[in-house]
Amino acid sequence: MSISKFIKILLVEDNPDDIAITKRALKEAKVINQLWIVRDGQEALDFLYNRSPYNNTQENPQPGLILLDINLPKVDGLEVLKEIKADEQLKNIPIVMLTVSKRDEDVLRGYHNGCNSFIQKPVEFERFVEVVRQIGLYWGLLNIEAAK
Amino acid sequence: MSISKFIKILLVEDNPDDIAITKRALKEAKVINQLWIVRDGQEALDFLYNRSPYNNTQENPQPGLILLDINLPKVDGLEVLKEIKADEQLKNIPIVMLTVSKRDEDVLRGYHNGCNSFIQKPVEFERFVEVVRQIGLYWGLLNIEAAK
Repeated sequence: MSISKFIKILLVEDNPDDIAITKRALKEAKVINQLWIVRDGQEALDFLYNRSPYNNTQENPQPGLILLDINLPKVDGLEVLKEIKADEQLKNIPIVMLTVSKRDEDVLRGYHNGCNSFIQKPVEFERFVEVVRQIGLYWGLLNIEAAK
Repeated sequence: MSISKFIKILLVEDNPDDIAITKRALKEAKVINQLWIVRDGQEALDFLYNRSPYNNTQENPQPGLILLDINLPKVDGLEVLKEIKADEQLKNIPIVMLTVSKRDEDVLRGYHNGCNSFIQKPVEFERFVEVVRQIGLYWGLLNIEAAK
């Protein structure tokens, strides 16, 4: 399947291995050529609100998809989710939450606070790559973004 | 890819051709063996709230995914979306909105009111089947449902 659509993805992830896998998988899926990475919940909010050091809106544009790890330093993933979905502008950006362990309580809190999708990170490397590829294809190719 | 997970899908759709295509595509994807169909927005709400004639909760269980057409008789799709996402129990069910024309205004209103994903129905038959198959795979296989 040839892909011609591009979306801007913001990855909020503190684990270097998971960042590397996600980058590789998205590249293989040929879904995007634009990926931004922030490493904790505070950085994610600073990025989305274009606060320093992300003031330059050309270099740090609003993403079309947020991949949000649930366990993050400083501000955790569920708190970041709540802040985004309570904001009239930011709430239209789809958020896929990612987690290693699928605790029922986390999944429920994710949906309750408006996450668009909740996905478990596979432990096995190749499977992780495949899952990220599928996420990229679904949100990059099938799903329609809200117009800005 | 062999699929062993099953989700219950509620299809809210009044167009008989689109119902037939969706049934066929989901069957081909081997994602589900349980599909419920209602044909207007009022029926959708009656089903979800187990109101007559859907009182029997065994025969009419809460779905794990709602495929919601936007143009519906009686109560339109966006109104159904609003009611579901304003309900503390029902809001955890993922809703994929489907529409023939992707009017920016509809997409924006969909996300603003909490739809999980917004997808355009392709006009071309085989492409429509493929899109429904992809929806079934993503939400049936990758995505984690909120525990009841």
